[in-house]
Amino acid sequence: MNHPEAPELMEFDIPPLDESAMDRARERQDQLTKPPGSLGRLEELSVRIAGMAGDPTPSLDSPVVVTMAADHGVVEEGVSAFPQSVTAAMVENFAHDGAGVNALARTAGAENIIVDIGVAGDYDGNDRVIRKPIAAGTANLANGPAMSREEAIEAVEVGREVVADHAPDADVIALGDMGIGNTTASAAVTAAITGADPADVTGRGSGIDDEGLDRKIAVIRRALADREVDPEDGVDVLRAVGGFELAGLAGIALEASSRRIPVVVDGFITGAAALSAWAIDERVSHYLLPSHRSVEDGHDVQHDALGLEPLFDFGMRLGEGTGAAVAIGIYRGACTALREMATFEEAGIPT
Amino acid sequence: MNHPEAPELMEFDIPPLDESAMDRARERQDQLTKPPGSLGRLEELSVRIAGMAGDPTPSLDSPVVVTMAADHGVVEEGVSAFPQSVTAAMVENFAHDGAGVNALARTAGAENIIVDIGVAGDYDGNDRVIRKPIAAGTANLANGPAMSREEAIEAVEVGREVVADHAPDADVIALGDMGIGNTTASAAVTAAITGADPADVTGRGSGIDDEGLDRKIAVIRRALADREVDPEDGVDVLRAVGGFELAGLAGIALEASSRRIPVVVDGFITGAAALSAWAIDERVSHYLLPSHRSVEDGHDVQHDALGLEPLFDFGMRLGEGTGAAVAIGIYRGACTALREMATFEEAGIPT
Repeated sequence: MNHPEAPELMEFDIPPLDESAMDRARERQDQLTKPPGSLGRLEELSVRIAGMAGDPTPSLDSPVVVTMAADHGVVEEGVSAFPQSVTAAMVENFAHDGAGVNALARTAGAENIIVDIGVAGDYDGNDRVIRKPIAAGTANLANGPAMSREEAIEAVEVGREVVADHAPDADVIALGDMGIGNTTASAAVTAAITGADPADVTGRGSGIDDEGLDRKIAVIRRALADREVDPEDGVDVLRAVGGFELAGLAGIALEASSRRIPVVVDGFITGAAALSAWAIDERVSHYLLPSHRSVEDGHDVQHDALGLEPLFDFGMRLGEGTGAAVAIGIYRGACTALREMATFEEAGIPT
Repeated sequence: MNHPEAPELMEFDIPPLDESAMDRARERQDQLTKPPGSLGRLEELSVRIAGMAGDPTPSLDSPVVVTMAADHGVVEEGVSAFPQSVTAAMVENFAHDGAGVNALARTAGAENIIVDIGVAGDYDGNDRVIRKPIAAGTANLANGPAMSREEAIEAVEVGREVVADHAPDADVIALGDMGIGNTTASAAVTAAITGADPADVTGRGSGIDDEGLDRKIAVIRRALADREVDPEDGVDVLRAVGGFELAGLAGIALEASSRRIPVVVDGFITGAAALSAWAIDERVSHYLLPSHRSVEDGHDVQHDALGLEPLFDFGMRLGEGTGAAVAIGIYRGACTALREMATFEEAGIPT
């Protein structure tokens, strides 16, 4: 759909998967010293990453986890179990390596990039935090658009810049989020893009009670009813009911895809970001990799829409990129096996 | 059951889980900077490992994957898709770092110990292979006991020695296997110990056809019918229908448990070894951790008997310790989060 009077996002040039690299990866898998197919899904995933990277024996030696943080005006509606000040406090915690994603990124040997794209509160940050705030949190989406179209575009561009300036040499990027109130925005985005009923994609986030959950669903219903949202225009969805970190993460996914860098989706919030990116340019889906299955019901709806099948289900619901960080080790194993195992010929084993 | 005239295995002194360490780990999990329980199963697993290690903040910095190889006389019955010579060829491949388990252990930062506990063929090994063969493969279990009781005990003792001499400082040990024909022995062991029907625990191994599968089931039925097997005596089961690597891996699990070292089970063969260890001393089950869900049907039966719930299902069926090696990264992440995340108090976040 055209928005002739509205500002336009720069286009992303996302290449198709490299079929030749995938064919060569598949051939190699069949020659490696194991019964063909015996590494199961690890083989399929390694072939897919070969297609993304355009390399028949890709490595994942430079993983990056990007955790983007922003605040949400909708917290005024009492949709979260935690106060808004926790967003800033957690950014400080990220900066000092104290959070879950820090520990899990470290375990995965990944750099953990922290981006403030719209945190409302103050924090004692340090060099670890890349500060690119669009505003001090979004507007309350219960009462009007979460942001202007200009802001949505600006936030996507921040994602693009983060990849270009801070992770140009990454060989895989995991998406992570922080933002009190962001499961509300994510549920609204998911309902808008997939057409799902808000009740089917809205969960308890960091732990609201039954009453809070009802309030959360009602807010999303009202927002989607009040606003004209074009579900095929990701930027418009982000404007209407999104969040700055959702838009920024969509930008990261789009820019990474343009550079043939695989993108690992984490939980429900990054799932909404991935859906937004897909509604901006559906070719991004070639470069998306799943990680865990979150306890948020809407995560399944997102995975189905994006054609992703989670790797594991640990009942996680922390966000930050924690599940995606755990998945990096699995993807690295899949690629290392493809690249470093001997073939039957090399090992001198007759077949 | 007593075998007054038979030689006896040395006893293992396996301590219970450390409840105090588990309580302290649980308390700490609830103080870490995340909504309580939001790391889901990773939290439970970290608490369990705390109980195994007797340390409220355990680390998994020195993981070891032990791959034990042996041959099986039952291959004479045409129960395998590969010739017996592949066992020796794969040991050579392990020694030269060319196999799947080498690549996946490397990815996990784990040492990969290779043990020949009864390989029939010759191979150009090197210092990587610990040579402790009981014999050049087991006898054909279709016609009589796979080994003598003395040999079964000796093989378990080899497992004990491998831990004592080569992995005393390991903080987690993953079990791995290699042995053409060993899914037949493993199915027989699983049926003997759990009482399951052989048809329900026998699969295609490295890839036999329908006819081969029927033959395999028939061999197992006959062996269990012909022999008096005491299902409550793990050594007797190993003697009757086991394998040297199964017995050795059982010894590793028992000795590791005695030393409070967590043991990660891989696929169907190491599952049979874990069951054998359990039939020798049921306290070993405190120290067992699951990894993947194999395509072999009998794996579920083993997991149910041992009270284990797999972490992931990638349709793997390679063995060697490959699935357990992938799981190490997940367990390490769980422990790193428990140990290294900041508490709300440390981060100065009011709760």
